[in-house]
Amino acid sequence: MDDVERRVAFAQVLADAAGAVIGPYFRSPVAMTDKGRPGFFDPVTEADRRAEEVMRKSIASEFPKDGIIGEEFGAMPGTSGFDWVLDPIDGTRSFLAGNPLWGTLIGLEHHGRTVLGVLDQPFLRERFTGCKTTELRDRRGTTTLHTRECAALADALICTTHPITYFDDQQRARFHRLELACRFSRYGGDCYSYALLAMGHVDLVVEAGLKHWDVAALIPLITGAGGTLTGWNGDPVPRGGNVIAAGDPRIHAAAVELLAR
Amino acid sequence: MDDVERRVAFAQVLADAAGAVIGPYFRSPVAMTDKGRPGFFDPVTEADRRAEEVMRKSIASEFPKDGIIGEEFGAMPGTSGFDWVLDPIDGTRSFLAGNPLWGTLIGLEHHGRTVLGVLDQPFLRERFTGCKTTELRDRRGTTTLHTRECAALADALICTTHPITYFDDQQRARFHRLELACRFSRYGGDCYSYALLAMGHVDLVVEAGLKHWDVAALIPLITGAGGTLTGWNGDPVPRGGNVIAAGDPRIHAAAVELLAR
Repeated sequence: MDDVERRVAFAQVLADAAGAVIGPYFRSPVAMTDKGRPGFFDPVTEADRRAEEVMRKSIASEFPKDGIIGEEFGAMPGTSGFDWVLDPIDGTRSFLAGNPLWGTLIGLEHHGRTVLGVLDQPFLRERFTGCKTTELRDRRGTTTLHTRECAALADALICTTHPITYFDDQQRARFHRLELACRFSRYGGDCYSYALLAMGHVDLVVEAGLKHWDVAALIPLITGAGGTLTGWNGDPVPRGGNVIAAGDPRIHAAAVELLAR
Repeated sequence: MDDVERRVAFAQVLADAAGAVIGPYFRSPVAMTDKGRPGFFDPVTEADRRAEEVMRKSIASEFPKDGIIGEEFGAMPGTSGFDWVLDPIDGTRSFLAGNPLWGTLIGLEHHGRTVLGVLDQPFLRERFTGCKTTELRDRRGTTTLHTRECAALADALICTTHPITYFDDQQRARFHRLELACRFSRYGGDCYSYALLAMGHVDLVVEAGLKHWDVAALIPLITGAGGTLTGWNGDPVPRGGNVIAAGDPRIHAAAVELLAR
């Protein structure tokens, strides 16, 4: 196995470890702290912090020269050229609402380029791993995923998590224009919307203000399934930002064009 | 067993039968027809129609004197005083998007009063049955559900499916005022939001324009768990309408008051 392949296998161990920590907290009372700006609710759970600690320890033990960037405990530079980018619970509001659409995101970068992404949903027992290809492992086995064709926006199913909370007025207006051009929209998906895109059930995911640890795992997940993930302007967003993911390059181009107006 | 108890047991058979029909269609290409007003997309799948046919046949065989009201094939009056109210796939857009938040809704009325409700989610293997109490049967066994206490709107988690599609401008403004008074909101839940309310994970569900077959199963589900489901004005909505469901009567009263302004 080469350096990346060893880490693809190890990422499964990390996801198992995170899931074992997080699982018992889901749909149980959880400890919460506010970490956002005053008056703005941004929940982070004890499960989130404990799962990141477990993953950090495991990485430090197995790949001590790898760097780690995590939502909860910041950045620890490495010397191997590899950096793990961790978000133990992406979609904390879904998590708090008892909704199984949150996910554990594990990204891996090599000299700054994303090479591996895992989205694990332990309650659904679904694990999505994107590298050269994207695979879903669930209770039925392992499947290679492909985004679906969609030639025109009028046929597209578009997702975003929460157009009120996560968009400013201008972003909301731009999103709404795009939404109206699509067949229909679905809200509330969090990171799971990207899994639905990789599986070929939806055509577009549009979100704003994603962090480094939100996108690092998602980029290989989408591109490995044949899709595209960029900024709203079509440029790469390896460190996060306003994100548009599409299953078919034709509607990616059309959506970027419409968002830019 | 009395007449209702026999039908509580039979409702499980109906849900099994519907799930067996619908399951293979989920996350597969499905046949769709438009049934809404021109230009408005309201998907209904072959799975929806086939599942309702199977349930209708089963009821006609087991309780031939019971009436049936279904989304897909209309009303068939009975003579026993019992009426089954069926919506095989509530949340067809979730279904089409591959999201496991749709549900099979089976309600039972006795002389017009709802006495039993089932929400079945076969992909998650979760079945909620509301009668005198509300029970969840999942892979871990059977649990009696209770809504949670929530004294003030400022602590409440509020859900709605899609404030753009399902509310008119005035309804959206009223909902938004209530949403701002709450701790945070989640979108996209479809009927599963009511299950989250019965489980005590969320505090309020507010929706508009629900049909008879949307609410018939949900009323016993919510009340059996200790919650309240009424119209936005606080009156009963046994035939559907604009619905507010709350886990705690205190925030139900506060929300109705705020929605009325």
